Amino acid sequence: MSEWYLAEAPAPDEEHRQRAQQHQDNLTKPKGSLGRLEDVAIQLAALQGTSTPRVNKPLIAVFAGDHGVTAEGVSAYPQTVTAEMVRNFASGGAAISVLARSMGVPFQVVNAGTVYAIEDLDNVLDRRVAAGTQNMCVTEAMTLEQCLEAFIVGRDIIDEAGDINLFIGGEMGIGNSTAAAALAVAHTRLSANAMVGRGTGISDQGMAKKAAVVTRAMSRHLPHMKNGVETLRRIGGFEINALAGAYIRAAQKGIAVLVDGYICSAAAMSAVKINPSIRPWLFFSHCGAEPGHSRLLNKMDAVPLLELDLRLGEGSGAALALPIMNAACLLHNEMASFEQAGVSRGND
Amino acid sequence: MSEWYLAEAPAPDEEHRQRAQQHQDNLTKPKGSLGRLEDVAIQLAALQGTSTPRVNKPLIAVFAGDHGVTAEGVSAYPQTVTAEMVRNFASGGAAISVLARSMGVPFQVVNAGTVYAIEDLDNVLDRRVAAGTQNMCVTEAMTLEQCLEAFIVGRDIIDEAGDINLFIGGEMGIGNSTAAAALAVAHTRLSANAMVGRGTGISDQGMAKKAAVVTRAMSRHLPHMKNGVETLRRIGGFEINALAGAYIRAAQKGIAVLVDGYICSAAAMSAVKINPSIRPWLFFSHCGAEPGHSRLLNKMDAVPLLELDLRLGEGSGAALALPIMNAACLLHNEMASFEQAGVSRGND
Repeated sequence: MSEWYLAEAPAPDEEHRQRAQQHQDNLTKPKGSLGRLEDVAIQLAALQGTSTPRVNKPLIAVFAGDHGVTAEGVSAYPQTVTAEMVRNFASGGAAISVLARSMGVPFQVVNAGTVYAIEDLDNVLDRRVAAGTQNMCVTEAMTLEQCLEAFIVGRDIIDEAGDINLFIGGEMGIGNSTAAAALAVAHTRLSANAMVGRGTGISDQGMAKKAAVVTRAMSRHLPHMKNGVETLRRIGGFEINALAGAYIRAAQKGIAVLVDGYICSAAAMSAVKINPSIRPWLFFSHCGAEPGHSRLLNKMDAVPLLELDLRLGEGSGAALALPIMNAACLLHNEMASFEQAGVSRGND
Repeated sequence: MSEWYLAEAPAPDEEHRQRAQQHQDNLTKPKGSLGRLEDVAIQLAALQGTSTPRVNKPLIAVFAGDHGVTAEGVSAYPQTVTAEMVRNFASGGAAISVLARSMGVPFQVVNAGTVYAIEDLDNVLDRRVAAGTQNMCVTEAMTLEQCLEAFIVGRDIIDEAGDINLFIGGEMGIGNSTAAAALAVAHTRLSANAMVGRGTGISDQGMAKKAAVVTRAMSRHLPHMKNGVETLRRIGGFEINALAGAYIRAAQKGIAVLVDGYICSAAAMSAVKINPSIRPWLFFSHCGAEPGHSRLLNKMDAVPLLELDLRLGEGSGAALALPIMNAACLLHNEMASFEQAGVSRGND
């Protein structure tokens, strides 16, 4: 029980939650009329133990890793793309690069385990655990040592982040929507067909093959999934496991997390399985186009902020939801009360 | 046919639409993976006739007006609140004030017809058509002269706005969700029960009464609604009609519109009824908590960007969707192509 990732995250402060609810009810608007934004502000006030919740110091970190399961032909893109996209992140041409830059949010890329080594690049940390995972249809994706090392890759990003109050993780890894689907099956016990989607854009035939691959992997590993760590070791990925480590560490340090799409949600659910105390720290940015995503969110009782038919990953959906979370805080902190503004109350 | 509000808005440029689609397919992401954001960027490119669509010069204008139908007891708030909230907009304490300020968006308040006169206030234009509308249960909400004058109040805001490329309208008016419900019934021919909601927060009993009020008004006016102008004259409001005028003028001048909640959607549908050529210029920001809103959006084949259970109005939902529209443009304009970034293509 002395493993770092089992240490409990702080519990929300219920007194601040109650005060935040009262404060919302005093602001110049009909009670509850800011809908989901009120929930966000109140939950953040409870988590941060404050009357002025804030997400004004975010960090976006994208983790990259390759997947042995691509040998089964599950992706529309060649495996070289993982490293190519790392270069694109670094040079500013990827979607998440554009979003981070336009919002002025600190942005970091972490190579957690691409198949191909990548030359030194600005803003890219080389933390390769290995040259991609093993094929989960044939064996375990990684050793226990590698699994724990990948957690630490994520943990260290939080520890080295300085003063932040929101963490957004992203991912890049050809084949990782197959790993996410396998994790989703492991956590929900629904069928592979329910959890497999088009990923980067495979055909109906490709989807059927992908579902068969997940089913095959699960029949090998499911009997041995005695805990959350073992699940991530057998069917996870270096970037997925690094995300799980980062989510756990963020919550332990009192930093709220904004979870991105399907793959990040699978990492988040895996992290919650390992350490349930982190659940209140997780906000879910969007429900993506992968059909398994909404099922996974349901399983976590997670209500996402956006639904824009996204299926890109990289942290892009979370980056798009950041202004909504920020607005929720600003409205909570800056709106006038009925008394301050001299506005009459209703009988709502 | 020489009325200004009948002049046609420019049609989208189909060549630019096609080019924008091709451009999206060349960006470093799986085809279609930015979902709704791709639709927004492509539609804007067609509307603006450009390869670099932009919404970087927005204007938010909130129109206020009072409603005679409040005499029927349809709102949870007293009618004094309309003017009180105008002061709150001006002093920066209202939700839309906070949002506009935090995003650095120019913000204007227009008094189109409050019952009570309001002292001179910074940022508040006094364009009162009259001291509130008449009770639509008893007579027409306004005269034809007043109706046309309210259109012009909206038109002039656009004409005086200078160089903008996006218009966001908001509204404030105790009782105006009843007027919006009546307009929604007029445009969809669905029942009052389907179109009436809690507004600022009335009870089940209050909702039944509100539905009865709308039914009563409609039985009086429906036989006489020979065109869109007559509909807005009989059951509209000064702020609603000003919004319709602003939407029409914006489209005529090639300015895209981001429509807010239920009341703004009712104004937008009324404007489209009067001048169908403006429809392509309308983007819909969110589907709110009022049950009639989704029905009204369906009727217009409008797919909103957000669904956050909002029911505040003021333009707040549109302000929250502005960063999404802006991100759609930036991604379109700044992402690298596969060729530029040296990223391999998939077979998607």
